[in-house]
Amino acid sequence: MIHRFRKMISLDSSVIKGSGDDCAVLKYKKGIYQLFTCDMIMEGIDFEPDADPFLIGRKALAVSISDIASCGGIPRDAVVSIGVPGNFKLSRMDGIARGMSALARFYGINIVGGDISGADKLIIDVSMLGTVGEKYLVLRGGARDKDIIFSTGSFGGSISGKHLRFTPRVKESQFLVRNFSVHSMIDVSDGLIQDLGHILEESKARGAIVFDYLVPQSAESRGLDDALYSGEDFELLFTVSPSEAENILKRHTRMFHPVGIIDNSIRGIRLENKQGCRRFPLKRGFRHF
Amino acid sequence: MIHRFRKMISLDSSVIKGSGDDCAVLKYKKGIYQLFTCDMIMEGIDFEPDADPFLIGRKALAVSISDIASCGGIPRDAVVSIGVPGNFKLSRMDGIARGMSALARFYGINIVGGDISGADKLIIDVSMLGTVGEKYLVLRGGARDKDIIFSTGSFGGSISGKHLRFTPRVKESQFLVRNFSVHSMIDVSDGLIQDLGHILEESKARGAIVFDYLVPQSAESRGLDDALYSGEDFELLFTVSPSEAENILKRHTRMFHPVGIIDNSIRGIRLENKQGCRRFPLKRGFRHF
Repeated sequence: MIHRFRKMISLDSSVIKGSGDDCAVLKYKKGIYQLFTCDMIMEGIDFEPDADPFLIGRKALAVSISDIASCGGIPRDAVVSIGVPGNFKLSRMDGIARGMSALARFYGINIVGGDISGADKLIIDVSMLGTVGEKYLVLRGGARDKDIIFSTGSFGGSISGKHLRFTPRVKESQFLVRNFSVHSMIDVSDGLIQDLGHILEESKARGAIVFDYLVPQSAESRGLDDALYSGEDFELLFTVSPSEAENILKRHTRMFHPVGIIDNSIRGIRLENKQGCRRFPLKRGFRHF
Repeated sequence: MIHRFRKMISLDSSVIKGSGDDCAVLKYKKGIYQLFTCDMIMEGIDFEPDADPFLIGRKALAVSISDIASCGGIPRDAVVSIGVPGNFKLSRMDGIARGMSALARFYGINIVGGDISGADKLIIDVSMLGTVGEKYLVLRGGARDKDIIFSTGSFGGSISGKHLRFTPRVKESQFLVRNFSVHSMIDVSDGLIQDLGHILEESKARGAIVFDYLVPQSAESRGLDDALYSGEDFELLFTVSPSEAENILKRHTRMFHPVGIIDNSIRGIRLENKQGCRRFPLKRGFRHF
């Protein structure tokens, strides 16, 4: 469906990158690009009807912040469209507003507008603007053969509620792009394996190996499959050259974990265990909790 | 509800105007502001389930273009979030994409990103960026006592489908702001009287008189009430000083029609007929068709 859209659309030269990445990239000031992204979350799909409204509001903003972070940018301004069922309690609405504004304050984001209308189920769409220095911009499409694949944080905690409580990795992303040359980056919303697939696809890379024993698992993860396939961890996945990988490891930071390698001598993604046995990953990731 | 949101939100100095107008206004380049707006349209509220998908897609984009026009700006870039029911036909989806991209091409708008998810009913949220020269920016809040109130186009056609087919008034807005000093402007989405009320409110003006016999009625309008109260005509309503009003009238353009006057000697809006009799307008406008 997205492909059908894309082929109908013409873009002018002010667009550095249109759809197909975490954010659109637009010309802005000298040396700076503007990032533009939108994310819609919906009751029953992205959160349970009885979820804490504070956390619903928080998540609505956090997913867009995560998109900005995965392009190396800093979130700046947001507009919010909300569809609200007729019987929706005002106290729950307050909770949503509080969750949103708390996160906005923390990240210094201006909520500059919005639109409220009726709906059958609660639905929140956030559009966000950010900025990124031209030299700091990272997209999905820059991975090269032999790049080392790193991640932030840990995986598999989404099922137990991390998808509502995750911290968008703005700090980690800023540290990364300001100190290292990053070839490609994505935030893990569909699952580690599936989002690595998006990096390969956009980078026109043939294959990659994920060392399953290196994938950091959340305390809440029920096993490796949760960590590899469950979505909405919103950690960053990125690739750097082998020499830059050494530079990252020399910093002894606990922010980043090597989990695999881009390998164009194979086709597709393989999982490798400690004994060196390789296997195919499961085909599907999970978009939602 | 919007007020509750607003009071929780803190904005930094890059925000010229936050929520409360047709667009948010952000600092951009020297002499230029950036406009940022979002509008959500929903099946059963903003269009009938069996409406032509081309016109649904067209409207989704057009309402945001109208917001940009009502601030004196030029639309530039958009992102689109779509919620689609599981049984939605691909041919209808194509129609939506065609309607959107046709309008985008006409106005030179880049559709730079999007998000598609599942939903119970079709829902489309468009966020749009525009630009406006600092000296051309017009907001709702600048109306002054004795300003003449003008409109574009005609009113009351929404019921018979204008809300799906209207032409956003970018051309008229550009002609206006580049040739005249405009004090305040809004696009009529809630109804002429109700949106004039928004101008008064934001301008802290006490009252206004609308000369009902001057209000241009669409051929499809069933009478004056349709023209005054039905929403989604998406015409522009603006105010200028009496001397600037003369300058506009001297141009003998058919684009703009004088319909009333800001009058701080009265409280609220009055309708006046040809005989000079004044009456109160009905209280409510209609948000939707």
